[in-house]
Amino acid sequence: MQRYFVSKEQLTEAGAFLTGEDAHHAARVMRMSEGDSFIVSDGTERTALVQVTEASPARVDAQLIEWLEMSSEPAWRVTIAQSLPKGDKMELVIQKGTEIGACAFIPFESERVVVQYDHKKEAKRLERWSKIAKEAAEQAHRNRIPSIEPVRSWRELTASYPKYDLVLFCYEREGHESTGQGLGDVLREWKARETRPAEPSILLIVGSEGGFTEREAEEAVASGAVLVGLGRRILRTETAGLVGLTCLLYESGEMGGA
Amino acid sequence: MQRYFVSKEQLTEAGAFLTGEDAHHAARVMRMSEGDSFIVSDGTERTALVQVTEASPARVDAQLIEWLEMSSEPAWRVTIAQSLPKGDKMELVIQKGTEIGACAFIPFESERVVVQYDHKKEAKRLERWSKIAKEAAEQAHRNRIPSIEPVRSWRELTASYPKYDLVLFCYEREGHESTGQGLGDVLREWKARETRPAEPSILLIVGSEGGFTEREAEEAVASGAVLVGLGRRILRTETAGLVGLTCLLYESGEMGGA
Repeated sequence: MQRYFVSKEQLTEAGAFLTGEDAHHAARVMRMSEGDSFIVSDGTERTALVQVTEASPARVDAQLIEWLEMSSEPAWRVTIAQSLPKGDKMELVIQKGTEIGACAFIPFESERVVVQYDHKKEAKRLERWSKIAKEAAEQAHRNRIPSIEPVRSWRELTASYPKYDLVLFCYEREGHESTGQGLGDVLREWKARETRPAEPSILLIVGSEGGFTEREAEEAVASGAVLVGLGRRILRTETAGLVGLTCLLYESGEMGGA
Repeated sequence: MQRYFVSKEQLTEAGAFLTGEDAHHAARVMRMSEGDSFIVSDGTERTALVQVTEASPARVDAQLIEWLEMSSEPAWRVTIAQSLPKGDKMELVIQKGTEIGACAFIPFESERVVVQYDHKKEAKRLERWSKIAKEAAEQAHRNRIPSIEPVRSWRELTASYPKYDLVLFCYEREGHESTGQGLGDVLREWKARETRPAEPSILLIVGSEGGFTEREAEEAVASGAVLVGLGRRILRTETAGLVGLTCLLYESGEMGGA
């Protein structure tokens, strides 16, 4: 069934309405008319099944049929912190990471970032990334849209570590031997701790094409991160976060893992 | 260190030589000259460290320094059978699947394939896909290049199931509730079997954009496949194989999992 994310104001006890691109999509592309149903979510807290009462390409009104459970969100809330990659790789990370089940994305700058990041274009870029997250969340039948944070400096990122229950830093020293423990070993040890929260916040930090410097790895550890390796093959920057996220959610019991 | 895959004839006890694009890459792009080292592999059995004796853009000769261990290949040999997706998604599956550690790829046709597959272009397409696998294997420091099989019919694919130790069929019924067991449950149960080989061959079957029909799922089960789900979010066709592959390798103990 078709899904749309709307603002909180557009979804009430009475029903919901669509405007703009969503209304056009529902009325024109999906050819919805009176009596058709769709699912609508405010992207943070509430999801409902609604039924069209009036549809035009400018506005679609629908009445509430029933509130639905927010049932497709992972218990482990994983944020991918991705050092700015080249080209449109960040878009791939956001699109695929949203499908797989990431909770948020934080682009950040590290020493070996090779792109010249233009801060003046930040608003436009964030808007584009947020749109990709919204569309991927709709397609994947997520209940929430992952948030896309503004680009952070290395300092801002390390200062934010204490907000998380676990900070994982994907690290391969030059020469490409992973120097961290395997991700699986770290996760199983951590899972066994009695103090671990049931719905932990986890930060997964991934370098750009050039990786991290040794100094950055040391600073990350000093700030509370755990160095981890993702196996014996060298993953491209845009692949590492998706693989790490998948392993985390698999270990958490999503995908029938436990 | 730079890596190249060459034919068996190009790698002997005496050393190795590069020609064509590889020679050009080594001599021009990497500016290698006498005394520089690189790693060379025949893509199936042998990998060696060699040292340049003579370099030109047409041919690079190198002498053997030492044979290296084939150490970066996963113990679980996973073949991704991907029902033909639209656009260039197959290329993404091959590139990322090679990085993550797939052993082979089998494109195939199922009922709901939406692309018109032109069999006349098969040779050219296979060549392109094989080149993507070779480049991704070099980049990921793999010892082997995954093989790309010719496009198979549904019948040919089901007939090949007995060649594998485990056949996993990713399936979501219309309405998008997964009807298979979670992948993790299936894998742990299977791992515990005493008869399981230490280096199993596993076939992971993924549908195209339109998914599989109920009849196809029934036929797959009748032919020996196990239906599995990959969690509560709906993955795009090009994401499902990569996520499934990652979960398999994580469960096998790659990435420090066990």
